[in-house]
Amino acid sequence: MRARLFTPGPTQIPERVQIAMTNPLIHHRGIQFKQLFQEVRDDLKYFFQTEGTVLTLTSSGTGAMEACVVNLLCKGDKVLTISGGKFGERWGLLCNNCTADATVLDVPWGEAVNPEDIKDFLKKNPDTKAVFLTHSETATGVASDLQTIAKVVHENSEALVVVDSITSAGVLPFKMDEWGVDVAVTGSQKGLMVPPGLAVVALSNRAWERVEKSDIPKFYFDLKKERKAQEIANTAWTPAITLIMGLRESLKMIREKGLENMWEKYALLAHATRQGVLALGLELFAKSPSDSLTAVKLPESIDGVAFNKHLREKYGITVAGGQAHLKGKIFRVSHMGYYDALDMISMASGLEFALADFDWEFEHGSGVTAVQKVFLEEK
Amino acid sequence: MRARLFTPGPTQIPERVQIAMTNPLIHHRGIQFKQLFQEVRDDLKYFFQTEGTVLTLTSSGTGAMEACVVNLLCKGDKVLTISGGKFGERWGLLCNNCTADATVLDVPWGEAVNPEDIKDFLKKNPDTKAVFLTHSETATGVASDLQTIAKVVHENSEALVVVDSITSAGVLPFKMDEWGVDVAVTGSQKGLMVPPGLAVVALSNRAWERVEKSDIPKFYFDLKKERKAQEIANTAWTPAITLIMGLRESLKMIREKGLENMWEKYALLAHATRQGVLALGLELFAKSPSDSLTAVKLPESIDGVAFNKHLREKYGITVAGGQAHLKGKIFRVSHMGYYDALDMISMASGLEFALADFDWEFEHGSGVTAVQKVFLEEK
Repeated sequence: MRARLFTPGPTQIPERVQIAMTNPLIHHRGIQFKQLFQEVRDDLKYFFQTEGTVLTLTSSGTGAMEACVVNLLCKGDKVLTISGGKFGERWGLLCNNCTADATVLDVPWGEAVNPEDIKDFLKKNPDTKAVFLTHSETATGVASDLQTIAKVVHENSEALVVVDSITSAGVLPFKMDEWGVDVAVTGSQKGLMVPPGLAVVALSNRAWERVEKSDIPKFYFDLKKERKAQEIANTAWTPAITLIMGLRESLKMIREKGLENMWEKYALLAHATRQGVLALGLELFAKSPSDSLTAVKLPESIDGVAFNKHLREKYGITVAGGQAHLKGKIFRVSHMGYYDALDMISMASGLEFALADFDWEFEHGSGVTAVQKVFLEEK
Repeated sequence: MRARLFTPGPTQIPERVQIAMTNPLIHHRGIQFKQLFQEVRDDLKYFFQTEGTVLTLTSSGTGAMEACVVNLLCKGDKVLTISGGKFGERWGLLCNNCTADATVLDVPWGEAVNPEDIKDFLKKNPDTKAVFLTHSETATGVASDLQTIAKVVHENSEALVVVDSITSAGVLPFKMDEWGVDVAVTGSQKGLMVPPGLAVVALSNRAWERVEKSDIPKFYFDLKKERKAQEIANTAWTPAITLIMGLRESLKMIREKGLENMWEKYALLAHATRQGVLALGLELFAKSPSDSLTAVKLPESIDGVAFNKHLREKYGITVAGGQAHLKGKIFRVSHMGYYDALDMISMASGLEFALADFDWEFEHGSGVTAVQKVFLEEK
């Protein structure tokens, strides 16, 4: 049985990236690395649609989130964090951890934040220094209206817009400079289609002014030190060289395909999957679904932990389960990564098999047919 | 021309490790990863010769050094840091960064710290909470007498012994528990023979008592959170999965060979290389040389930057240059990693070729012969 990975990080890796990472190791202080890293650095600007600075760190996405908080803020800064899932929550924990004055705007899991609520907060708190939010919440599969939120923040405050775009960069339409996003972070194992181990932070010039003033101690995640090094295609600390080799290849692929075409492809994969899920009589968990991943509610008669295990053991399909109070209640399927239409059809087919094994009643073939129909109409 | 990497990190990677890392990616929250990570966790205890806790982080070695400082100390703690090179210096920077009361004991680059100097400090400062030192200083190729130092620290204070063993673990004799080392860190790209991107921290029970009390903010490098996760073969944050696949394989190889045999092998490679270098009329930079790497002084007539470039471009050999004030004055050759006797002979041969190109006078073949002689006598 062939293993198929449909988790929203790590995602499936293109063969070209896999091959690039098996190249002989090179020294990170030599000319070969410099050339390699220069390409990565420049292509990442395209990836984020920014003329700002994009820095690569050796850490998970959480490391890059911490880097944002400890580099952008001063102790006691008033900030707003939006929490509608495990990853949105993390912004609040990070800000509180470095003694910022953080207000957490709680959004029910499965829903997107209402930009009006952000506006209300900023009107009452015009001295807010930054708004930390999640573009695509991986825990719930919800996409927020980042473009509108960025506009609202800038119209009502001097606050920076700091975005966890971990499962949106390269996947959902995302135009950092045009939308006025000040800082965005991602991890290598999502839309960048590389194994985990690298994180990326993109910063506007406006964000750098704050970095200059920040009084929070940092060392490994010191972005000023990284900028100084990465300006000359170096890194402050020893980087994950093989992953950077992979990153160069995946960025090349993304450039070849074109970012807009990637966005369109993912939107189609997500739309088709949602149609398939609905055709099987299942419900979507997210009210404003992200095209990066689909979170599917399982019927009460089915235990999600057992279901996901069965899907993996019997059909080779690995999906992600629910987190925190959603454990056993939902499963999450990735569209971002190295996937195409036939992957989504395989997924729908495996899902039908497993649902039948769990005695869920539906018309056999209806899920696969619904997915296929979307692709046929687009051909 | 075949490229040969002789840098003291990244080091050459065994084929078996390379192959292990190309296995299909797995999800880090599934059973497969758990099994994999359990083996890594247990083998790392053997690697450090400890019954303590060994935690794997996704970062460079510097990240793990920061983790030590921010988890072991309280604000204002009095500490001693030993600085005899770029990496020893880093302990001082890290401690000062988190407002510890750090005294830096400066040792001339190329020399090992005198344990008596540590004793003197501790006699005058019995309230010292920790001594941070470097076992094998990668910048200078100097090994310190860790076993004696640990003894001296424990006899004269309650201070923790915290060791940068980045280029010593798995390479030089190192018995964490037996010697009373409280905390040791390493990176994946050294004796562990894996590409960079992972760091490892080993902690004694005594060290954990300090971790419980620490009041310095941390998040990504929160070792309590990591311990809780890694106890059940999980990780707090998304780990560098492919590198962990490689790490499992390299730890297996080290177990098969036996740690003592690895130490002996490295000692022999280093001894042979030193004999070769001396036979060519060159001098060693380190007065107490580490068997992990050899730092060689270049004659004043030869510019080190040009020499290393020539060695790489003409003979495919990459060595590391000097850092800071040693730039252009020394080169550094690794023994740690996936190297054997014939690798050291290749290295000596390339060195002879390049020295001849730079008009250094020596008897051709004398370097290679001296290296070979050591191995012949050991056969």
